[in-house]
Amino acid sequence: MMSEADFSYIIDTFFALFSMVLIIFMVPGFAMLEAGLVRTKNVSSVLTVNTMIYAVASMMFLLVGYTIAFGSWENTSMSIWAAFLFQMAFVGKTVNIMSGGVSERVKIIPLMIFTVFMGGIIYPLVVNVSWGADMLAGTLLDIDMYDLAGSTVIHSTGGWALLAAILIMGPRKGRYQDGKIKVVPASNIPLVVLGAMLLWIGWFGFNGGSVGSISSKENADAVALTIMNTNTAGLAGAIIAAIIMYFRYKLLDITMILNGALGGLVAITAGPDMYDIYTPILIGAIGGALVVFAVPMFDRLKLDDPVGALSVHLVNGIWGTLAVGIFAKDVSFMAQLKGVLLVAVFAFVVSYIVLFIINKITPFRASDEVQVEGLDVNEVGVEAYPEFKRAI
Amino acid sequence: MMSEADFSYIIDTFFALFSMVLIIFMVPGFAMLEAGLVRTKNVSSVLTVNTMIYAVASMMFLLVGYTIAFGSWENTSMSIWAAFLFQMAFVGKTVNIMSGGVSERVKIIPLMIFTVFMGGIIYPLVVNVSWGADMLAGTLLDIDMYDLAGSTVIHSTGGWALLAAILIMGPRKGRYQDGKIKVVPASNIPLVVLGAMLLWIGWFGFNGGSVGSISSKENADAVALTIMNTNTAGLAGAIIAAIIMYFRYKLLDITMILNGALGGLVAITAGPDMYDIYTPILIGAIGGALVVFAVPMFDRLKLDDPVGALSVHLVNGIWGTLAVGIFAKDVSFMAQLKGVLLVAVFAFVVSYIVLFIINKITPFRASDEVQVEGLDVNEVGVEAYPEFKRAI
Amino acid sequence: MMSEADFSYIIDTFFALFSMVLIIFMVPGFAMLEAGLVRTKNVSSVLTVNTMIYAVASMMFLLVGYTIAFGSWENTSMSIWAAFLFQMAFVGKTVNIMSGGVSERVKIIPLMIFTVFMGGIIYPLVVNVSWGADMLAGTLLDIDMYDLAGSTVIHSTGGWALLAAILIMGPRKGRYQDGKIKVVPASNIPLVVLGAMLLWIGWFGFNGGSVGSISSKENADAVALTIMNTNTAGLAGAIIAAIIMYFRYKLLDITMILNGALGGLVAITAGPDMYDIYTPILIGAIGGALVVFAVPMFDRLKLDDPVGALSVHLVNGIWGTLAVGIFAKDVSFMAQLKGVLLVAVFAFVVSYIVLFIINKITPFRASDEVQVEGLDVNEVGVEAYPEFKRAI
Repeated sequence: MMSEADFSYIIDTFFALFSMVLIIFMVPGFAMLEAGLVRTKNVSSVLTVNTMIYAVASMMFLLVGYTIAFGSWENTSMSIWAAFLFQMAFVGKTVNIMSGGVSERVKIIPLMIFTVFMGGIIYPLVVNVSWGADMLAGTLLDIDMYDLAGSTVIHSTGGWALLAAILIMGPRKGRYQDGKIKVVPASNIPLVVLGAMLLWIGWFGFNGGSVGSISSKENADAVALTIMNTNTAGLAGAIIAAIIMYFRYKLLDITMILNGALGGLVAITAGPDMYDIYTPILIGAIGGALVVFAVPMFDRLKLDDPVGALSVHLVNGIWGTLAVGIFAKDVSFMAQLKGVLLVAVFAFVVSYIVLFIINKITPFRASDEVQVEGLDVNEVGVEAYPEFKRAI
Repeated sequence: MMSEADFSYIIDTFFALFSMVLIIFMVPGFAMLEAGLVRTKNVSSVLTVNTMIYAVASMMFLLVGYTIAFGSWENTSMSIWAAFLFQMAFVGKTVNIMSGGVSERVKIIPLMIFTVFMGGIIYPLVVNVSWGADMLAGTLLDIDMYDLAGSTVIHSTGGWALLAAILIMGPRKGRYQDGKIKVVPASNIPLVVLGAMLLWIGWFGFNGGSVGSISSKENADAVALTIMNTNTAGLAGAIIAAIIMYFRYKLLDITMILNGALGGLVAITAGPDMYDIYTPILIGAIGGALVVFAVPMFDRLKLDDPVGALSVHLVNGIWGTLAVGIFAKDVSFMAQLKGVLLVAVFAFVVSYIVLFIINKITPFRASDEVQVEGLDVNEVGVEAYPEFKRAI
Repeated sequence: MMSEADFSYIIDTFFALFSMVLIIFMVPGFAMLEAGLVRTKNVSSVLTVNTMIYAVASMMFLLVGYTIAFGSWENTSMSIWAAFLFQMAFVGKTVNIMSGGVSERVKIIPLMIFTVFMGGIIYPLVVNVSWGADMLAGTLLDIDMYDLAGSTVIHSTGGWALLAAILIMGPRKGRYQDGKIKVVPASNIPLVVLGAMLLWIGWFGFNGGSVGSISSKENADAVALTIMNTNTAGLAGAIIAAIIMYFRYKLLDITMILNGALGGLVAITAGPDMYDIYTPILIGAIGGALVVFAVPMFDRLKLDDPVGALSVHLVNGIWGTLAVGIFAKDVSFMAQLKGVLLVAVFAFVVSYIVLFIINKITPFRASDEVQVEGLDVNEVGVEAYPEFKRAI
């Protein structure tokens, strides 16, 4: 007869692997989303970046990051290898968020050097103090916010790193000229949709898997509620973005609708298990609306972000974490706010310093000539669509 | 020590979530299939429609549909949230089937209004009398057909709604002119293939999950047999379509082969657990052949259906439901036929009335000028491939 | 109270279905990879081939192959239907490997005839003597290499069939002319990336599922370790390919990076459960490096392979199988070598003979005119991107 502990070990290992696989779908998800949003001359570059972020960040997490985050390779509630894989699936996301926002002018090699630090040290340290070994426990800087799957730990961390990167690299050549904002249309909308939908599906693993166990009735309910609420917030974000776009422009801009959905998904990520089934509608709707208003705001601030990552991940990472303090029972708003601020300071400052130093050694920003010609021929040596004649 | 009931609750919750995730892959599945089949000028529109159908239909199902279908939010055999998610994953499909068939001339806003009714009321009522609370039980109109995963409940319902929609909206401008049928080539074949394959994979969750439990040996066998037979019917549909195309035209039209596979998949959906492992070859082959012959037939009837949805979903939804009455033991052919007819009358009449009323308020059909210019610039404001020069 | 045997039966059935679904994602994976690597005029052909390989090979495996491989349809440790589906998911892969390497000149019909033999007889015989009923047990030809998930059984078998096919069909027209190698650029890089990433995800099911059970603590650990090591080898393959490309050309060729990852994945496939967590870095890195050096080598030998399948699958299938003999405890290098050689001789000779005979009846090679015009219009009747104006 099997013991309940053995049963849990087996089921939770299986469930962690299932969740991890869903999260890995976010690798093509981010890749397709960003490949669709940039111009054809930079598509191969964006795809190379996405592929190499997964490779380098995951490898660094294997070699040093996991140990920094969790202190040791021990685990009894499930297979340690499954626990590792689930955590590893997260690590590239912070860099993905950052790299997407500096697309069309970032060079690959310095970005890879940053990925080494982000995947090996910066992100693992954030995990350490939030979910992991908690080396700041008992100190004044102790973080005890509730952040189930990383509105702050993943999305804001990536968003603050992106903000630092945008400040260091500047906007794309010609984007803000003569006081005007040049519109740069996305080159391949089906890829944008495919990518966003793969991200959405990956989110089920991200948030559902973060419950950590499915092997009791209570946990099975918590996992299912988490996935349900995650999805609901995405629905609400898409719907509200569509409504706003329609009433403002009479046009249903699909890229904004998808960013609205992603905004809702980021916002729910801190506490999908903490709400009833209707609250996520409100949280997601606010998340979607924030995206629609934040995208032009960042442009007015000349923070050039071709994929809207600041609006989706940074703004909603903050909103989602604070929302737990507002809507969830027994969660302190001040603890949430403190967590948001501490991670903000840490992630922004450390990222800025690391980016600044790397930038001195090997600059991130591609030259104006390379930007005009496209990063693909200069950095990858492979055009994305060599046979298709360009109209613009 | 864990009770068998707790074990089942946990495993069946996990299995429902697994199945639901597979079904959600049908959202990008439909989106990519349809984006590949329409002309480039309508691709963003089709993608917006697919995204918004998922958002609106799912939200309506959360707010009212689930209650209409199942009477209450109670469940003891698995987590109610998992049960909801599994059912919610189905609801957009009926509208997807309908929207695909009126592509390239349907306006998004009236379609969204229809989606509100379809996801909130019409489809939930069909589920109520077929799988759910069964409010017609004991009456003359009681439906007791066998329809495991919805050959009738999903596919025919969507197909009848589509037929009503085509009658109301008419064919695309210029499609049937001077007694000729204008061929409109698909714009992106890789997307068509990707979409069809994602649908195929989603079908494993659709049909396998519809067994409802995997937590006994008998149920584990039933689930595995269901997925095996589902796949086999798809294989047979593809093969027979290829054979027919080859002997007729010496050309292996990939879009027809894929529609043949999808036809086989629709046909098996009513009873994949009811057959031995060879019968699905016959059912799927007939399904694939029906598609090949139905596509030109509907064109001769001037029922303009750019993606072949009537042939795939309506014709094979009927065929598949009747096939259970022919091939499965202990299933009455007359009960199947009665179910097919009752759902036909209900779905067609109600859809027609709702579509008719909406059409009076805000017409579905885009103007000739908009159709010529493309729906993308007029309804979405985003071109799908702005950088690629058009050859035609 | 549930018995441990029943528990295992249920969980292992579920796990086999989960693994099988992941492997099926390799069908669109191969399809997108190859569609992206060939020129636009041959994209529909490649997609038709991939679709039909899945259909025909799987159907043949159902009708005869499974019985040849395993002797009988009996199984007690999990549902026989799940066991079948898991094995069936493998069968098309050998033909996929072969068909990819003869893209842009192979005709579909003879390839389908070969698929009938490969899926129905050749591959099942290889499985029989390696993993299955083992009809050569006790003879001099007995194979007792360790090959968990098919570095040799799948990848080398496919690779040897490909080598035979290339010898029979020759290079694409104009590829090697006047002593020069004509570079043929890939037509759609996002599809290449998407395809490779879907293959990567599928590999988790391929290798993880090959452990055969997750229903004990030991097996759960073995499955998780297998997936972790599989992933690590892919990471290492990508990184080493990127490093080599950068130091040689200062360009990060994304197609080579992805082939490096795939090479690492093939190499680990023979023994992912046999290593600690660091050895796969070495095995994958060597795998990735082998790809980078093998691709130009095969070109110098005028073995024209548009997708690099010989380098990825044949070279690394051999390397990976031998690696188990080098790095794993208690595995004989000589047994590995013997297995590699016996399968090589069998797969190459039988494939060559079957290909040779089919070639006499209906030649594989498309005429020069058809190759120039493109296979799509001649064999499929559907252009992949009819609306996009060609630049080259």
